[in-house]
Amino acid sequence: MQLLMDRIRKDGKIKAGNVLKVDSFLNHQMDIELFKEIGKEFKRRFADVEINKILTIEASGIGIACIVAQYFNVPVVFAKKTQTKNIAGEVYTSRVESYTHGRIYDIIVAKEFLGKGDKVLVIDDFLANGKALEGLTALIKESGAELVGAGIVIEKGFQVGGDIIRSSGIRLESLAIVDSMDEETGTIVFRNEEK
Amino acid sequence: MQLLMDRIRKDGKIKAGNVLKVDSFLNHQMDIELFKEIGKEFKRRFADVEINKILTIEASGIGIACIVAQYFNVPVVFAKKTQTKNIAGEVYTSRVESYTHGRIYDIIVAKEFLGKGDKVLVIDDFLANGKALEGLTALIKESGAELVGAGIVIEKGFQVGGDIIRSSGIRLESLAIVDSMDEETGTIVFRNEEK
Repeated sequence: MQLLMDRIRKDGKIKAGNVLKVDSFLNHQMDIELFKEIGKEFKRRFADVEINKILTIEASGIGIACIVAQYFNVPVVFAKKTQTKNIAGEVYTSRVESYTHGRIYDIIVAKEFLGKGDKVLVIDDFLANGKALEGLTALIKESGAELVGAGIVIEKGFQVGGDIIRSSGIRLESLAIVDSMDEETGTIVFRNEEK
Repeated sequence: MQLLMDRIRKDGKIKAGNVLKVDSFLNHQMDIELFKEIGKEFKRRFADVEINKILTIEASGIGIACIVAQYFNVPVVFAKKTQTKNIAGEVYTSRVESYTHGRIYDIIVAKEFLGKGDKVLVIDDFLANGKALEGLTALIKESGAELVGAGIVIEKGFQVGGDIIRSSGIRLESLAIVDSMDEETGTIVFRNEEK
């Protein structure tokens, strides 16, 4: 998605440790006009499949997922991150290891909001090591719902997440795939960029 | 907002300790069609004022704020909850005491996304004791931005938050104010309900 790649080049900041800061428009301050274009693009890419629910994970996935959901006319469910023990039986739960924050947390979804018959599109802002997406996939599987695909705004193509998810047979659509970036020069190379 | 009050009566669940669960449509599973009506109603109520930014707080405020923002054509900034110490100078920070979760946390907003000249509308899902809203108000004041008003989806009118905020001179618009609710009978009394 060229509009997104242009925006990442313009406003993204490359930091030490392969960190790409896009918090001026994606995940702290949120450019809703851009989110609408992202929503249209996901709808275009997943136009051929039936979806009745969007699943995301707090916190930075929620805003994008809600705007995207308008183009699919479906509700959004967000998985909650928790470090407290939950009452077994009421929620689906999965463990996620976060490299960025150096901690392990559980994600939970109430059983009443996900289950057999649901055709789920996962939406998230970033895909790097793929741990969050693996956790969501495990939740969906446990619930008996069907994972139709995953829509990611920015994939870090130089990390393993994309390869792992694609090789597991999940349909993955990433709107911008960063293959490399250089902190010193500020250069970003995107996969399959047209221009 | 009658549509919202009807929905709370239909799908809200009253639990012990004055807890109103609305997680089937507001803050776990999110009904985007309802959010759009909420957005239109906030736009109607704040039609007379100039707003250039919406501020909310993670996690459950984000989805509502993003949909609402479409009707104002402004970006959204969400305050992040953190229990880690942040680098002074880069963020505005405020302390919030959560009764519901029995803990104290800091909320932060990067300085680059809030400041003098900003005319801010705060959007959140719930107002009860008003601690989160007080924290956001303190952040806005510290930043030099102007707090134009606060839009709340559900106010618990039997708790002190609404009175505190209104008496401080802040323009507060709550779409549904619960004056009382009864766990045993399931009855909810809303303030100023027309029917």
